[in-house]
Amino acid sequence: MDIAIIGSGNVAAVLGRKFKAAGHTILQIYSRNASAASMLAYEWDSESTNYISLINKNADVYLVAVNDDAIATVAKELLLPGKIVAHTAASVPKEILKTVTAHYGVFYPLQSLRKEMSYSPDVPVFFDGSDEFTKKKLELLAHSIAEEKVAEAGDDARLKLHVAAVVVSNFTNHMYVMAEEYCRKEGLDFRQLLPLIEETASRIKDISPRQAQTGPAIRHDSETIHKHLELLKQHPQLKNLYVLLTESIQQFA
Amino acid sequence: MDIAIIGSGNVAAVLGRKFKAAGHTILQIYSRNASAASMLAYEWDSESTNYISLINKNADVYLVAVNDDAIATVAKELLLPGKIVAHTAASVPKEILKTVTAHYGVFYPLQSLRKEMSYSPDVPVFFDGSDEFTKKKLELLAHSIAEEKVAEAGDDARLKLHVAAVVVSNFTNHMYVMAEEYCRKEGLDFRQLLPLIEETASRIKDISPRQAQTGPAIRHDSETIHKHLELLKQHPQLKNLYVLLTESIQQFA
Repeated sequence: MDIAIIGSGNVAAVLGRKFKAAGHTILQIYSRNASAASMLAYEWDSESTNYISLINKNADVYLVAVNDDAIATVAKELLLPGKIVAHTAASVPKEILKTVTAHYGVFYPLQSLRKEMSYSPDVPVFFDGSDEFTKKKLELLAHSIAEEKVAEAGDDARLKLHVAAVVVSNFTNHMYVMAEEYCRKEGLDFRQLLPLIEETASRIKDISPRQAQTGPAIRHDSETIHKHLELLKQHPQLKNLYVLLTESIQQFA
Repeated sequence: MDIAIIGSGNVAAVLGRKFKAAGHTILQIYSRNASAASMLAYEWDSESTNYISLINKNADVYLVAVNDDAIATVAKELLLPGKIVAHTAASVPKEILKTVTAHYGVFYPLQSLRKEMSYSPDVPVFFDGSDEFTKKKLELLAHSIAEEKVAEAGDDARLKLHVAAVVVSNFTNHMYVMAEEYCRKEGLDFRQLLPLIEETASRIKDISPRQAQTGPAIRHDSETIHKHLELLKQHPQLKNLYVLLTESIQQFA
């Protein structure tokens, strides 16, 4: 397909690379940030512009990969009747694009994307569309970069997926942050925890998280928990988290 | 080296495999569980016994890989003067073995180990010993299976490492549990989150967890947080966690 990308941030950059790798053509990239746009255009052997009025009218699909807050602004300035236009946000209703075209939709990558990634992570894609034509086209595009990791998801389902993503990604990363801070203060090498972190994440491909739950909380090993809380006296924020998460693990079990 | 392993659980099984793969000989495996011991002995071309009095006296190193609670019991029944004897527990002082031999120590694998693992995960090893001879030998053994991921750690440091391990592994897994439960109740496919979980864990090899923190909490995006809390009304335990972790992320930042 011939694709135009609106935006030059992390999502635009990584999806664009995946489209190129899948054999699509990136016809043009538009961004207010002219230098970011031209760098991506160079990478993709594409064109770039920072004038919204100069957006190429010949693409099959237009992907609006900008910050949630900026989608409404872009939508107000875009008029692409007959074209397929999709944004990439979890938490923004698809109707925000309805003034742009009759064929509007969503192309939401459920992954944490960074321009600097030197590898190409698996990116499940959830699509939605205002009509069957739009849905079919976006589904096809999704399959071309995500293989079987593709599903339809309306505004409500996308919002719920986003909640789950926050829990497994942002909250999990906060655990890493707190552990790193604790290691730094105690003179321990946080990097020695990386194999454990990796194993914890990859184990749940084989067994359910519930089966994988181990540790003093689930064992109700109050002697170890007590020892740990003694050690955490100098780390009030982590101690607080330790108590709450131990309770939550026991409450769930 | 010639190694005897006491215990037939997850730690015994995975460390034994690593020793074999590194070219050591597992002279014998002792366990109260005769069938578990003989299965591992078969795997390692070794001998097994369930009589503590029949423990082979010719090994270089004896590894006590049993539950924390069982170490004292085993120590009372063992007498191996002149031999190196080490337990594998984070939270148990090395002195628990001092009646067994003058050369006692610890060989603590900082990893979550499961007998059923079909792959061999990286296992950083923290060793300790009652004297230089013991330390040197355990360090050598550690390097043979963990390469550069080896460090000395006394009782206090090991206990602290265990706290950090609980945070990055048990608490993190609880996030997966809560997200899976939420997906199940909402009819979403938890497995679509696996690539995100994997990326979140592997990213911190390249950038620090602090740099990697993203999401509505760190952005103080109260509109999204509010939408999420609305959706979580039917999930009180997860809602409670969401609020507490959002506060903790903001407090830390």
